[in-house]
Amino acid sequence: MNESRLDETHDPAVLSLVASANVAGTDFPLQNLPFGVFRRGTEAPQIGVAIGDRVLDLPAAIESGRLAVSDEISNACLSRSLNALMGLGTAPRRTLRRQLFTLLRADNPLGADDAARANLLHPLAQVEMLLPAEIGDYSDFYASIDHATNVGSMFRPDNPILPNYKWVPIGYHGRSSSIVPSGTPIHRPNGQRKAPDAEAPTFGPSRQLDYELEMGVWIGKGNALGEPIEIERAEDHLFGLSLLDDWSARDLQAWEYQPLGPFLGKSFATTVSPWVVTIEALAPFRVPAAPRPAGDPAPLPYLNAAGDRDEGALSITLEVHLQSRAMRERYLSPVRVSRTNFRSLYWTPAQLVTHHASNGCNLCPGDLLGSGTVSGPEPEQRGCLLEKTWRGKEPIALPSGETRAFLEAGDEVSFTGRCEREGFVSIGFGECRGEVS
Amino acid sequence: MNESRLDETHDPAVLSLVASANVAGTDFPLQNLPFGVFRRGTEAPQIGVAIGDRVLDLPAAIESGRLAVSDEISNACLSRSLNALMGLGTAPRRTLRRQLFTLLRADNPLGADDAARANLLHPLAQVEMLLPAEIGDYSDFYASIDHATNVGSMFRPDNPILPNYKWVPIGYHGRSSSIVPSGTPIHRPNGQRKAPDAEAPTFGPSRQLDYELEMGVWIGKGNALGEPIEIERAEDHLFGLSLLDDWSARDLQAWEYQPLGPFLGKSFATTVSPWVVTIEALAPFRVPAAPRPAGDPAPLPYLNAAGDRDEGALSITLEVHLQSRAMRERYLSPVRVSRTNFRSLYWTPAQLVTHHASNGCNLCPGDLLGSGTVSGPEPEQRGCLLEKTWRGKEPIALPSGETRAFLEAGDEVSFTGRCEREGFVSIGFGECRGEVS
Repeated sequence: MNESRLDETHDPAVLSLVASANVAGTDFPLQNLPFGVFRRGTEAPQIGVAIGDRVLDLPAAIESGRLAVSDEISNACLSRSLNALMGLGTAPRRTLRRQLFTLLRADNPLGADDAARANLLHPLAQVEMLLPAEIGDYSDFYASIDHATNVGSMFRPDNPILPNYKWVPIGYHGRSSSIVPSGTPIHRPNGQRKAPDAEAPTFGPSRQLDYELEMGVWIGKGNALGEPIEIERAEDHLFGLSLLDDWSARDLQAWEYQPLGPFLGKSFATTVSPWVVTIEALAPFRVPAAPRPAGDPAPLPYLNAAGDRDEGALSITLEVHLQSRAMRERYLSPVRVSRTNFRSLYWTPAQLVTHHASNGCNLCPGDLLGSGTVSGPEPEQRGCLLEKTWRGKEPIALPSGETRAFLEAGDEVSFTGRCEREGFVSIGFGECRGEVS
Repeated sequence: MNESRLDETHDPAVLSLVASANVAGTDFPLQNLPFGVFRRGTEAPQIGVAIGDRVLDLPAAIESGRLAVSDEISNACLSRSLNALMGLGTAPRRTLRRQLFTLLRADNPLGADDAARANLLHPLAQVEMLLPAEIGDYSDFYASIDHATNVGSMFRPDNPILPNYKWVPIGYHGRSSSIVPSGTPIHRPNGQRKAPDAEAPTFGPSRQLDYELEMGVWIGKGNALGEPIEIERAEDHLFGLSLLDDWSARDLQAWEYQPLGPFLGKSFATTVSPWVVTIEALAPFRVPAAPRPAGDPAPLPYLNAAGDRDEGALSITLEVHLQSRAMRERYLSPVRVSRTNFRSLYWTPAQLVTHHASNGCNLCPGDLLGSGTVSGPEPEQRGCLLEKTWRGKEPIALPSGETRAFLEAGDEVSFTGRCEREGFVSIGFGECRGEVS
């Protein structure tokens, strides 16, 4: 990989003054430093940085004088959402990251000042995490060819991958208003559904409620309406990533989606993990774009850049865990139902950004791009129940003796994401969790 | 119609103190009173009300003491966008309408106070009109069965209307960020397009740029996530309507849209007229929902209410005018290319709102619902060039001797909307205009 993206903030030898950040397996070591928005009690929301089991209160850190940042960064960090910080672009964010790294390393004087530490570092368990940004627009892609192949096989057995798939990063506009932070209960939507052999649809609760394992890509700096983003510059517009659960009502979706695409089968809820892991934190985990199978076309020139091919993908191990109400009541741990990797996608984040803006569409700080369900070629890599159970025909068995074709009341779905590489400290994404009410 | 919706603000005998508002044919008589957001020079945006060729400066009117409104209404009217006013719901808006009617009627003392009038009423020609609201989410429907039939006939000759059409108000999520106010130049988008006989797509400027004649429905009071809106209560969530041009790149759309629907073929620009004509102003122009052809199913119960059937549609005559650059240079007037009526839709605004929220999706003040292209059964009623020219095969002739299959550089498209009914003052929507650059 291009080592120019690495700096002292990726040094695995440096420990944090927050002891829990030095424990192997933590999602939030010193080398991660994800941004989020938290609230303590009834106070106003504040921007924070996760470190071990603590959140650094960024406004308090700036006001204490221990984090000497420019006015530009300071103003952005005093906001109630990450939008302003996102809009600053790459260079100020890198500067802030280095300053946060310095503040939170074990040899910083803050480590010896118990009163100051208590003031600046709140237990994560005692804060409420909110949405990290005001999301102007949410777009959802379909970038896993394994997911597209599986779903296509069910609905169009003779023609699972449509002719445009290998040329166009297929996506659609999603619903912003119903995006909720991890932990928000998920209501089962009502809607129209029609059995293939029924004469007419009926209206009622969805019987095919599903999760979709995705990554959310947060836009940093925006582009003006009418001004595309070249693939070579796409990275400048990426802020970071979160986990994303694009809850789906498959029966509603199947009946409504032609010819204009998914609508109410998706818009009832989308969950994001509240911590945004920055592109800088992910630098060590860059990998080459997934190789295209022999015979597949090369991306058109506007989507094709050597740098993106060489290290435009991100290696993030993703897992889905499921726990039914009966499992909880019997103290049975959540069971892992999927394990896959974000690197397997047919399109890279940069390609999604460049394609999205290629018609001049203006992306804005805080916009969210969903990757689409991340599946792999193996059954255990399938990122939703639609695929796992092959549209309900092959229910999965739970440790409680129950089976699941689709989600039932009381089921809790949680996602995790981890980045690991020899010689670097592993980082994670925190939780993306929702219980079906 | 239910006369309970009518009050003194619909009285055709009352004239305005603004003389231009009393001229037959004005869009903005005293009985209209649409809301918008304007800017004078480099001042901050303000909420205004159109009256004849003037805009009433709402903050100035409140500050002058001539418009005695509650604190709730006052605060909303001092905002930079209509969102807060939209969020107040129906009753405060009706109160404000009655007060505006009183302030602007010919017998109000303001009429005799030249200095005060000059202070409160600015010439429309001297202000810049902005977007009326911050649009959180934009959803676009497909509610004209004539449009759906025409487009379906081109793409699926054997099966133009899909089985779900007569049951589901088909819609999709649109792009909020690229919605612009009337007058904003429209750039021609780049994108992928593939000729049917070509082996591979190419990337470049769209060759099939089109307008779509739509109405935009603005959401007033929102609903909480998870709480649907009953059809009987849908009207409480409607604020008003504007004209809407959902610019479309047909070649990009045709290649990209399967299986997830339109995306970059739409997201490069959407134009709205800046004045929002309220549901109250439209009360006299309510008409029964368009009758369903014999054999069509009745709407499912959640979309079926007697009041909505009886007077849930709105009679609005819509026209499209086109003027090419050559026509402008030769002083040839814009030519009318479509004339249709909003009442012909298969679904009413209330049905769109109720369906949208039926899965618990939260609609928010300032959200915008597009009706979809408003076409009628006759060729002159077709609301886009795709239909007018039957996908370019039957170009239309312009007075300049030119022909048009799709839009070319310098073409200006403008929409008008008018409501007329015997015994009432006609009202209009102002301009929805864009020139292709």
